[in-house]
Amino acid sequence: MAEMIEGKHSKFIVRERDPFNGGPPPDLMTASFITPNDLFFVRNHAPVPTVDVAAYRLTVEGLVERPLSLSLSDLAALPRVSVIAALQCAGNRRRELEAIAPIPDEIIWDAEAVSNTVWTGVRLRDVLGLAGLQSAVAHIHFEGLDPVGKPGELGGFGGSIPVEKALSSEVLLADAMNGVPLPPAHGFPLRVLVPGYIGARSVKWLSRITAAAHSSPNYYQTRAYKLFAPSVQPHSVDWDAGLMLGELPVNSVICQPVDGAVLPAGEVTVRGHALVGGGRSIARVDVSADGGQTWVEAQLTEAAPPWSWWLWQVALRLAPGTYEIVARAWDTAANSQPERVEGVWNFKGYMNNACHRLTLTITA
Amino acid sequence: MAEMIEGKHSKFIVRERDPFNGGPPPDLMTASFITPNDLFFVRNHAPVPTVDVAAYRLTVEGLVERPLSLSLSDLAALPRVSVIAALQCAGNRRRELEAIAPIPDEIIWDAEAVSNTVWTGVRLRDVLGLAGLQSAVAHIHFEGLDPVGKPGELGGFGGSIPVEKALSSEVLLADAMNGVPLPPAHGFPLRVLVPGYIGARSVKWLSRITAAAHSSPNYYQTRAYKLFAPSVQPHSVDWDAGLMLGELPVNSVICQPVDGAVLPAGEVTVRGHALVGGGRSIARVDVSADGGQTWVEAQLTEAAPPWSWWLWQVALRLAPGTYEIVARAWDTAANSQPERVEGVWNFKGYMNNACHRLTLTITA
Repeated sequence: MAEMIEGKHSKFIVRERDPFNGGPPPDLMTASFITPNDLFFVRNHAPVPTVDVAAYRLTVEGLVERPLSLSLSDLAALPRVSVIAALQCAGNRRRELEAIAPIPDEIIWDAEAVSNTVWTGVRLRDVLGLAGLQSAVAHIHFEGLDPVGKPGELGGFGGSIPVEKALSSEVLLADAMNGVPLPPAHGFPLRVLVPGYIGARSVKWLSRITAAAHSSPNYYQTRAYKLFAPSVQPHSVDWDAGLMLGELPVNSVICQPVDGAVLPAGEVTVRGHALVGGGRSIARVDVSADGGQTWVEAQLTEAAPPWSWWLWQVALRLAPGTYEIVARAWDTAANSQPERVEGVWNFKGYMNNACHRLTLTITA
Repeated sequence: MAEMIEGKHSKFIVRERDPFNGGPPPDLMTASFITPNDLFFVRNHAPVPTVDVAAYRLTVEGLVERPLSLSLSDLAALPRVSVIAALQCAGNRRRELEAIAPIPDEIIWDAEAVSNTVWTGVRLRDVLGLAGLQSAVAHIHFEGLDPVGKPGELGGFGGSIPVEKALSSEVLLADAMNGVPLPPAHGFPLRVLVPGYIGARSVKWLSRITAAAHSSPNYYQTRAYKLFAPSVQPHSVDWDAGLMLGELPVNSVICQPVDGAVLPAGEVTVRGHALVGGGRSIARVDVSADGGQTWVEAQLTEAAPPWSWWLWQVALRLAPGTYEIVARAWDTAANSQPERVEGVWNFKGYMNNACHRLTLTITA
């Protein structure tokens, strides 16, 4: 699967070339707490647009007192802030779901659609403050410059978040990740960054912000990125039903060793990450070597609460044999993860936060 | 188990007489969205104190600009607000955990330690505003008049919540439930009401509020009401570890039919409730008649989001046979429930939010 892409690591897993989609392999996923830009996952729905920074304007409109058209230098006048935040695609870990029943027309991610870095830019609320929100505003819409539809049909990729989240201190209009300007595939020159939400709400190549009483009418808010019950099938779906995804549930992934690894008997260090939305923290990660019958507590080794991921590890002493390794995270509200992927299957393949499992063979 | 208690329904299940502990039976649990006071569950750690309302004073102290001593008429000068909120004991559904391994020295609740009503009083933040919080304040402590320790040893029952929660609009100092003054067993004349948190933080017979930089040193904050990993046992516990419980995870309970019911073939309506903390909402409830192999969506019939419980029901058409009925709720962050109680077992028996299961026999 590995092939070279400009600006990306030689081991970056490319799922699609056009539009560009891919992410880091599991053994490099948690090699560092901050994901290097060349390993940061990419989820695009259209070709990467080329943006003329001199001509670029960010429009702020809708239910505002003062519609705005802001250049990058207008934005540069606002206070700059940095937030360490994980970003995760709602479709991460879709392959485990697809193993149960087909999930058509979606990228079949393993666990590579998540990364963690430091984002820098201005606060969305400062920009909304310049425009002045009217009292009826309940949602803030975003639209990008990426042409997701046929000409004249759809505009850019878009979505929305509740105004309470938009006014929080952690939501940024980011122009830099990990200390350098956003690479083109990551939204240059400006993207939204909504910590704790599915990646789709962090709209890239941001061109328009609309204050509104209702959530965005964009396809990617009203149709895609909705969670349906396991009984719902594509032919029977009521698109007005379903949960518009936003905040992320508690989740954890084993990154090392990799599934199917064959290792010598003795101490085996199991490593991974865990995350949760809503400003909650990861309280504990348990690891099982017997498929979930018994558990030991992992050590939480690195985090920048509450929007980052948490790295964790635990050393297991394993005799020769076959082991089903399972990880399970708990957040500060005592939410934990469903045991089995069968329980979270849905026809769009979103929000797989079932306990992550892999098989190890230990030799004498 | 049923015995008459003054002010309580004849079918109220009494778990302990002194201190008084009990709750409504499952078939009455969701008979109405608002739990009548005579069915509202009670969790007390000491005898109900008798309070002289003329002499009663609420002390506000610690890291405040102006320490206060407030009479009930002082409090009556503040704006009154009402909030519909469920209250749930952290030990609710402990019996399912105790069936796996002993849980000593705790009340073995079935699912009756949860109820839902309308609470009326003043906002805690208004009282804190009168006192003026110093900038170092991170936690707000509460202490009640109930004598939980031996004389001279421990004061009242107590606990704390983060200051951010304490300043939210939903946290009350309540003097009424369901439109009437708090009954003595429920905290007369004044209790804290912390929607979305374990019931233990809603301290009854409130006598003292302390603003502090750290969480409460009270036994019920530092020792009790902590969540430990399944590997931790009473003899090996490090009390400084463990998660101080606060916000509630997503949960749901089947109330009708009751476990073990024998019913005629045909349509069987399954009813229950679901709730979650953190200001999130219940997005969906699924019900399975085959132990969790297949699921149908229940109808959400009544709620007062986000602090109430959600009532739900679904009609199943069942042929003669034996059925394992399972319920599973999802919140708006796509958190759902662990499938099995084995996975959430802990030696204190807290926070059982595994999928609730019961067995039905359907006759010809």
